Amino acid sequence: MVTARTPPIFTSPQDAAVAFYRAFEARDIDALMATWADDEDVVCVHPGGVRHVGYDAVRAGFEHLFSSGGQLHFRLEQIVTIETVGLAMQSAIEQLQAGDDGAHGVAIATNVLMRTPSGWRLVCHHASPAPAVAEMPLTGPLH
Amino acid sequence: MVTARTPPIFTSPQDAAVAFYRAFEARDIDALMATWADDEDVVCVHPGGVRHVGYDAVRAGFEHLFSSGGQLHFRLEQIVTIETVGLAMQSAIEQLQAGDDGAHGVAIATNVLMRTPSGWRLVCHHASPAPAVAEMPLTGPLH
Repeated sequence: MVTARTPPIFTSPQDAAVAFYRAFEARDIDALMATWADDEDVVCVHPGGVRHVGYDAVRAGFEHLFSSGGQLHFRLEQIVTIETVGLAMQSAIEQLQAGDDGAHGVAIATNVLMRTPSGWRLVCHHASPAPAVAEMPLTGPLH
Repeated sequence: MVTARTPPIFTSPQDAAVAFYRAFEARDIDALMATWADDEDVVCVHPGGVRHVGYDAVRAGFEHLFSSGGQLHFRLEQIVTIETVGLAMQSAIEQLQAGDDGAHGVAIATNVLMRTPSGWRLVCHHASPAPAVAEMPLTGPLH
């Protein structure tokens, strides 16, 4: 008999964020999606990727990622948080290490978490590549 | 006599976001910074750039941008919002047009706004280049 896992209830935005990154590292799609709000307005952007909107699209994006990429290890640095009673923002520098070849990368992540009837859940994960240089390139058509 | 402008009070996150983009287009640094919360934990990431943390660093980043780049026009598309009583998230596709040479770019933006005693203000603007292709590149060291 298959026993379905009871979805966890995260009592703080930090708990939900930690569970998100643990499930990401473990490539456990069910545990990972249990950290997301089941909502059509959730948003996920992987570094350099398109924007996924809605729970199903976010899940499909992670399934694609897990099927095509190698294992990743995350170390979050310089975490900044702003928290209110119902919504919280977490900004962090993600130090990324690939499990297979040890390749290293750095991303800037903005996570937004919401307090739902089932505890705190992610409603936004926006990660983008951090520049290799200390100074930002401020020219060109993008701001 | 120099008359200081009274800081506006934005009664909704949408009002604050619209004022942010208008001031960005007008390259009006004072009007732009009046849309930000005066807080050490505010975060701003321009496409491909480093992360600026804190009101003064965010202001310095925009001053650098305005002094080195040309005028930009924004058109926001596919806006997704999640709003609670004290904090709101806005995700959008930014269609960017440079005023001088007409160059066009596309960015993905996550804006987070907070209700302060002085009305709604930005606490996070994270913009990153949108990929030129429809499918996201899912390999490499970044997730």
